[in-house]
Amino acid sequence: MTPLVRRSPAPAPRPPEGTITTMTDHSGTGSASVLELLGTRIAGVRHQDLTHHGHTVFHTALVDTVGVAYAGSAAEGSRLTRAAAGPLSPGPSLVLGTADRVSALDAGLLNGVSAHALDYDDTNAIMGGHPSAVLIPAALALAEEQGSSAGQVAEAYAAGYEAVIRISRAVGTSHWDKGWHSTPTLGVLGAAATGARLLGLSPQRCATALAIAASSAAGLQANIGTMVKPLHVGRAVREGLFAARLAAQGCTANPRALEEPRGFLDLYSGPGRYELAAAVPGAGDSTLEINRCSNTVKEHECCGSTHSALEAAIALHRKRRFAPEDVERIDIVVDRRCLPHTDRPVLPEPLAGKFSLQYVVARALLEGGIDSAHFEDEAYLSPRIRQLMNRTRVSVAAASWSGDVRVPAEVTVFTVTGGVLRHMAEDSPVGRTEVLHPPHLWEKFSQCVGRVVGQADVSRVVSVLERFADFADVRDATRVLEVCRPTERGRPGSPAAGRGRS
Amino acid sequence: MTPLVRRSPAPAPRPPEGTITTMTDHSGTGSASVLELLGTRIAGVRHQDLTHHGHTVFHTALVDTVGVAYAGSAAEGSRLTRAAAGPLSPGPSLVLGTADRVSALDAGLLNGVSAHALDYDDTNAIMGGHPSAVLIPAALALAEEQGSSAGQVAEAYAAGYEAVIRISRAVGTSHWDKGWHSTPTLGVLGAAATGARLLGLSPQRCATALAIAASSAAGLQANIGTMVKPLHVGRAVREGLFAARLAAQGCTANPRALEEPRGFLDLYSGPGRYELAAAVPGAGDSTLEINRCSNTVKEHECCGSTHSALEAAIALHRKRRFAPEDVERIDIVVDRRCLPHTDRPVLPEPLAGKFSLQYVVARALLEGGIDSAHFEDEAYLSPRIRQLMNRTRVSVAAASWSGDVRVPAEVTVFTVTGGVLRHMAEDSPVGRTEVLHPPHLWEKFSQCVGRVVGQADVSRVVSVLERFADFADVRDATRVLEVCRPTERGRPGSPAAGRGRS
Repeated sequence: MTPLVRRSPAPAPRPPEGTITTMTDHSGTGSASVLELLGTRIAGVRHQDLTHHGHTVFHTALVDTVGVAYAGSAAEGSRLTRAAAGPLSPGPSLVLGTADRVSALDAGLLNGVSAHALDYDDTNAIMGGHPSAVLIPAALALAEEQGSSAGQVAEAYAAGYEAVIRISRAVGTSHWDKGWHSTPTLGVLGAAATGARLLGLSPQRCATALAIAASSAAGLQANIGTMVKPLHVGRAVREGLFAARLAAQGCTANPRALEEPRGFLDLYSGPGRYELAAAVPGAGDSTLEINRCSNTVKEHECCGSTHSALEAAIALHRKRRFAPEDVERIDIVVDRRCLPHTDRPVLPEPLAGKFSLQYVVARALLEGGIDSAHFEDEAYLSPRIRQLMNRTRVSVAAASWSGDVRVPAEVTVFTVTGGVLRHMAEDSPVGRTEVLHPPHLWEKFSQCVGRVVGQADVSRVVSVLERFADFADVRDATRVLEVCRPTERGRPGSPAAGRGRS
Repeated sequence: MTPLVRRSPAPAPRPPEGTITTMTDHSGTGSASVLELLGTRIAGVRHQDLTHHGHTVFHTALVDTVGVAYAGSAAEGSRLTRAAAGPLSPGPSLVLGTADRVSALDAGLLNGVSAHALDYDDTNAIMGGHPSAVLIPAALALAEEQGSSAGQVAEAYAAGYEAVIRISRAVGTSHWDKGWHSTPTLGVLGAAATGARLLGLSPQRCATALAIAASSAAGLQANIGTMVKPLHVGRAVREGLFAARLAAQGCTANPRALEEPRGFLDLYSGPGRYELAAAVPGAGDSTLEINRCSNTVKEHECCGSTHSALEAAIALHRKRRFAPEDVERIDIVVDRRCLPHTDRPVLPEPLAGKFSLQYVVARALLEGGIDSAHFEDEAYLSPRIRQLMNRTRVSVAAASWSGDVRVPAEVTVFTVTGGVLRHMAEDSPVGRTEVLHPPHLWEKFSQCVGRVVGQADVSRVVSVLERFADFADVRDATRVLEVCRPTERGRPGSPAAGRGRS
């Protein structure tokens, strides 16, 4: 007689909402999952837990993201996305750079695309991507629908930041190395956390929101250099907010979706290629990520992985003015983390220039820097620039070359007369080195907003952003932004939109 | 003197719209990409190219999908999705099972969720998933917006089918084996092709639509057995249609996004784990996939991978009526392709029962089959069923056991009195074996539609579907569906919705 087989414990009824100790256990093991632990943390983020450092990180992200979203709202990709998404659903959330009010999901989509349209938005080295282009549009759009305070927006940003940074720590570099565009694939989890916090969800439902969002993580690096890259971001905002709202409605999901075999971490990092423990706060570790990390506010509106080489080329331009016919060859040596997405000797379209070491270095050598007009219309086909690009060689530095954070690049120009000019610049992997108070923040902000609205309106937008913390209802803030309409020159879709720096 | 380095050819200006010979070449090699070749094929699908076989496949898919979408519109997950997505954007496209008209994108989302809500929609063995729950909602929603004819809907379905089946051939089994839920991850490419064909896009823009869609492919198997699984499908419909509309607007994307290193195929199948050539029609191969493949119309509203075991248990029930106390042990042996997603000894929620070999076999042994009520409310907690599930052992058959298509399963019941009852049933990997004219199609259709509308309206819906090919404007067809409103009993969201088979 074969003995009675008991493979599994008796199933328990669905547990009530609550803390991690009573959470749904799909595994039958009784232990809390990564998302459940994260959910508890996210649900518990309080505005008053943010230190001065944390508040500064949030406010800097807000200012920088709103600024680049204004400028980006005039980009061709933003205009196309708007046309393709229409008709939009009605709602109270502002489409930045316009006076239009739509639903939180649609505003999140469009503002996410605008915020990333120029690749000028902030970056984070742990994420290997752009946190705020996802989190700020998510927080603002839903906050307007909820009538939330500025403090709640900061809280929601901190919650999203917590999810993004912790999961980024878990996936490490293997996620990007596989070919994923981290900004949307990790950002969508952040947007879900931001949305869940604004909706005041329980720990269990915060975990569910993250599990739903994990099933919509998408975005190929293969589409970097096309209009799809900013689109990734808009979709991550929309899908993250949608996940939070689904969880709020009682939608079910697998709270072990991250760590289960063949789950998120296996698919998006690879079996054995992630550190699960890094995603989970240790027992004694109550420090919020926003209170100890910070982001990088870009100085150049092109891919962060090109910035060191760009800085080196700018330095060479300061030493000597080149004409294309002076140059025999250009060598660019970069850290391996800056490749392969920036090795673009051929540009199939204007946006590809933002991700081409060859292009930005050639521009900087001839013109001393880059400009928004360099990535529009036919500028990418400039014969003078192509002449230099054809003489450029990109290679990877020796493995031991770079340190932990700073990623140098070296540009060498060989002239036809036998001269050799060389410069090495140091930078962080994804843009300029993180500093808590970037000195160029407000100048960049005014310059970005000024691309689409008149000067008087720039001052009004600056004023709203400066005193953002005072708003008890963010709709009072966006009501001011709403009346700062684009000028005819800068109206999204107009031929001159987003052109030039003046 | 170092020689002049020329790493790359001079870039060409953006090529005009046209056939594959003039397409954008991101690689600089001059050869057409997989998506460009597929784009040419999709743009060229004509209604008159469908054979009798092809038309039958389309019409069967239409009838089956509309039927299960009606029934699924009353599911809890469908109701929650609707609440979470709202406010919906205005438009002319019908939400099946309601009288609501919304935008094509929102109708696509909601009808996709409804079509897959019960896991009762058709399957395809090459795809390893559900093609029509994605393609039919995509085709109908956009056709209503475009005022397309029934012939154009068939054409668009065939175009989507072409993309799905060809890319499925390329990824083979490695895609599913990694942990992806193929229905949305491959289906989104199909929805993009369906949308692109309905919009009449050029070959180049069809390729772009597919490249955009490749960047939104998502869906974890880890979320199977929760409300997220049908949600995957709705999102695939929405994102696929959005990709087509973006391409129509002139959005750019990388046409080599599939085959580039670290592109779609590397990420979604794995380097070296796909057959690129299988995605590309051979020079002499003009046969459309719809003219040589077909789908499986399910007879049971649970995961296709459980169907063989379920059939075996039904056969045992016919031989003998069991009470829980008669049974000492149940052994279920299935093909390896049916696991691991169906090995669920513990059910955390009602929907998980649809994916549990233990659950459906226990139900069939005690009750002779499964019923929609078995997957609702507290039914999954039945003590009698749990008693049997606790005594069930699931194992994998020897590798040599199964053939190419048919996937048998064996159920053995050991009784407390020492009796041994065994039955082996044969089935296809994802449901019942494909047949071109499934005899149960219309009965299933009427039964599904009858769950949410009155009997007179069922007849009207049947009549519209029977003569669908005659409609010169599909809006004339959906105008009839619109007035077939749900009865109070079956209204989505009402407590009794979707209950029972009567």
